[in-house]
Amino acid sequence: MTINFEKILANIKSTTPLIQNITNYITVNDCANIVLACGASPIMSDDVKEAAEINSICSALNINMGTLGLATEAMFAAGKNGNKIGKPVIFDPVGVGASAYRTEIAYKLLEEINFSVIRGNASEIKTISRGTGTTKGVDVDISDVITDENLDEAVSMVKALAKKYNTVIVITGEIDIVSDENTAYVIKNGHEMMTTVTGTGCMLSALTASFVAPNTDDVLSATVAAVCSMGLAGEIAYTRMSKLDGNSTYRNYLIDAIYNMTGKMLDEGAKYDIR
Amino acid sequence: MTINFEKILANIKSTTPLIQNITNYITVNDCANIVLACGASPIMSDDVKEAAEINSICSALNINMGTLGLATEAMFAAGKNGNKIGKPVIFDPVGVGASAYRTEIAYKLLEEINFSVIRGNASEIKTISRGTGTTKGVDVDISDVITDENLDEAVSMVKALAKKYNTVIVITGEIDIVSDENTAYVIKNGHEMMTTVTGTGCMLSALTASFVAPNTDDVLSATVAAVCSMGLAGEIAYTRMSKLDGNSTYRNYLIDAIYNMTGKMLDEGAKYDIR
Amino acid sequence: MTINFEKILANIKSTTPLIQNITNYITVNDCANIVLACGASPIMSDDVKEAAEINSICSALNINMGTLGLATEAMFAAGKNGNKIGKPVIFDPVGVGASAYRTEIAYKLLEEINFSVIRGNASEIKTISRGTGTTKGVDVDISDVITDENLDEAVSMVKALAKKYNTVIVITGEIDIVSDENTAYVIKNGHEMMTTVTGTGCMLSALTASFVAPNTDDVLSATVAAVCSMGLAGEIAYTRMSKLDGNSTYRNYLIDAIYNMTGKMLDEGAKYDIR
Repeated sequence: MTINFEKILANIKSTTPLIQNITNYITVNDCANIVLACGASPIMSDDVKEAAEINSICSALNINMGTLGLATEAMFAAGKNGNKIGKPVIFDPVGVGASAYRTEIAYKLLEEINFSVIRGNASEIKTISRGTGTTKGVDVDISDVITDENLDEAVSMVKALAKKYNTVIVITGEIDIVSDENTAYVIKNGHEMMTTVTGTGCMLSALTASFVAPNTDDVLSATVAAVCSMGLAGEIAYTRMSKLDGNSTYRNYLIDAIYNMTGKMLDEGAKYDIR
Repeated sequence: MTINFEKILANIKSTTPLIQNITNYITVNDCANIVLACGASPIMSDDVKEAAEINSICSALNINMGTLGLATEAMFAAGKNGNKIGKPVIFDPVGVGASAYRTEIAYKLLEEINFSVIRGNASEIKTISRGTGTTKGVDVDISDVITDENLDEAVSMVKALAKKYNTVIVITGEIDIVSDENTAYVIKNGHEMMTTVTGTGCMLSALTASFVAPNTDDVLSATVAAVCSMGLAGEIAYTRMSKLDGNSTYRNYLIDAIYNMTGKMLDEGAKYDIR
Repeated sequence: MTINFEKILANIKSTTPLIQNITNYITVNDCANIVLACGASPIMSDDVKEAAEINSICSALNINMGTLGLATEAMFAAGKNGNKIGKPVIFDPVGVGASAYRTEIAYKLLEEINFSVIRGNASEIKTISRGTGTTKGVDVDISDVITDENLDEAVSMVKALAKKYNTVIVITGEIDIVSDENTAYVIKNGHEMMTTVTGTGCMLSALTASFVAPNTDDVLSATVAAVCSMGLAGEIAYTRMSKLDGNSTYRNYLIDAIYNMTGKMLDEGAKYDIR
C-alpha cells in the first residue's frame, strides 16, 4: 500500500487533464492556479446552459458548495453528466450544516450524484455522517477536531461513510484521514499557517480532482497523493517565510510549492500510516 | 481619547469572531484573507436563501455594494437580521452616485438598516450626505478630495451625517476621517501606493467589521484602530518594496503587514488627532 | 510603422482612463490590478440595471466571456452603449466553440456590437473565422497553434477576419499576431511560464482596453503596445524567479512588471515585425 507518488504526478503532467470546477467566487482564482501548478488545466464554467456539455470534454469535475446561487443548478447537471460518462466527480460540501439551505443542497447532491471523493473538514464530514450538524460557518468546530485520542473512532466513522456512499472520504485538519470502506490513510503533513489562508480546503479539492482524473485506476492512492502534496506544500511554504511575511505571501508560497512538487519530495516528505 | 490598540487587537485574536461579508466578486479573496490576517474568520455567504440564517451565527456583517446582482437581496435580509440580533452591520457604499440603480440601492439600505459604521471615499460619503453625486466610477473625484484646507468643513459634514444615521462615518483617502456625531479622528497614516491596488477600501471595510465585532463597547475606537492598521500596513508594505516590485507584490505585503500588526506598532505608528 | 511606445504609455498615465470590464469572476481581480498597474482605473460593474449607464462614464469597455450567467445581458447593454457613444469596445471570446451556448453568445455579440479589438487564442479566433470549432475548453488546441510554418496562412486568415468585422484581431500564443485588414504585426515576446498562470489572456484583454482608451487615433499601434508589454512583462517576470518560486509568485511578478514598464523598456525589448 505504498503510494507511487512519482507515477501519479507523471500521469497528470503527461496528460494535462481538463478539470471542470463549479466552485465559489471567493477562492476560484487560487483553485485555477493550483490546478495549473500541478500540471492540469482548469475550466470554471458554472452556467447550467453549458455545464453538462463542458463536462463532456473534461476528465474530472470538482463541485464546491462554497457559494450557492445560480451555480447550484449547474452542479446537478454537470455532476449527473460526469456519472453518465464515467468521469470522476469530487465533492466539497463547504459549510454543510451552517444553514438549512446548504444542508438541503448537500444531501440532494449526495442523493443524485455518485462522488469519487468527498472532502471536507471534520465538522462537514461529521454533519454528513450524522445527518445533523453544528458547523460554525466554514471552519471546523473545536468539538469535532480529530486528535490522536479520538482517531480510532473517526476512522470507523469515515470507513462507514465511505461504504455508505461507495466513495473515498477525506477529512482534513491537523490530522488528515483519507479512506475508502476498507483502508484508511492517516496523514500528518501540513502546517497550522494553512488555516490563515482562505480556501486551502477548496484548493485541495481542486487538486484532488486533478490528481484523480488521470489516475482513476486507484482513486484512493491518487487522493492520498493530493492530500500529502498539499500538506507538504504547506510545510515547504512555511520554511520560506521571513519575519515580515504573513498569510498573503504564504498563499503564494503554497501554490509555488505545488508547482515544484516532485515524486521524490513526496517519497521523502509524506507522513502517512495505514489503519 | 487615546486608543487602546493592544486591547482592541487582543479581543479579535482571543475570540476569532466570524464575519459575514456580502461583497463584490472582484476583491472578495483579499477581503477574506485580510479578515484572517487580523485574527477573525470570514464567511462570504450571499445567497438570500441562507443569508439571514448565516448572519445569526456571525459576530458582524460587512455589506459591500461593489457588485450588485443577486446578492442585493441578501444584503437586506442579512442586514435586517443583524439589526434584530443586535450585531454590528458595516456598510461600504461602493460607487454610490455612479449609477441611478446603485444610488437607489444605497439609499434603500440606509433607510431599512441601521449601520454601526459607514465607510467610503470622499465622493461616496458626500453623495450620501448631499443626496446627489458626481462619483466617477469607484474612485474619488478630484473635487471631493479632503485636504488640510477643507478639513474643517469635511469634519462638520461627517459629524452631521454621523448624527443623522446614528453611526460612525469613515472617509478614507490621503487624509482619513473617522467620526461619530461628537468626536472626529483625523488620521494621516497610509501611502499613495495603496491607490494602485484594487480593493484597499473593500479590505478596510472587512477589517473594520472584524475590529468592531469583538469591541462593540467602543465602535468608534475600534474603527479608528482598523483605519490606522490599514494605513500603517500601507506604510510598512511600501518599505519592503524592491525596485522590481509593483502593485501585485505590494498587495501581498499589505495583507502580510496586517498579519504582523501589533498594538505596540500601532502605539508607535498611528498618526491621529482629534477634532 | 514603428510603434511610439513612449507616447502610448504616457497617454494612459496622463488621463487615467476609466475602463469598464464585464468579465469572469475567476481572473477579475488580476484584471483590475493589471489595469491599475498600467495607470488606468478599473470598474467591473456587470449588472444590466446599470451596465449601460456605467459605460457612459467610461473610456473603454472590455467584454470577456469567461463566465456567462447574469452578466451576459449586461455585455449587450454596455457594448451597444459603447458603440453609441463612440468609445472602444474590446472582446475576449473565451472558450468560444467549447459549448453551443458559448458559441451562440459569441456570434450574437459579434452581430450586434462593433468591436475595436477582438483578442483570443488561436483556437478561439479560428472558431470565429471558420464558424465551427474544436476548442478544448479554454486552452488552445494543439492543431491550432501558430508556428513559423503556418504563419503566412494565419496572417491571411486574421487579415480577412479583421476586414470582415472592421476590427483589430489579436491571436496570442507563442507567436502573437495583431492585425487590421492591411497590416499584421507578428510579435515574439512572452515566456512559456505565462501558460501556467490562469487569466494571462484575460489580463491582456483588460490591458488592451486600457491602452486603446486614450489612443483611439491608432488602435492598431495601441494594441501592439499592449501585446508587447504583456509579453515583455512575462520575460521580465521569469528573470526574477528563484528556484522555489512557482506560478503564483510568477503571477505577481508579471503584474509588477506591467507596473514598472516604460517606453524605453519596450523600445529595447519589443520583438515585432510587420507582414
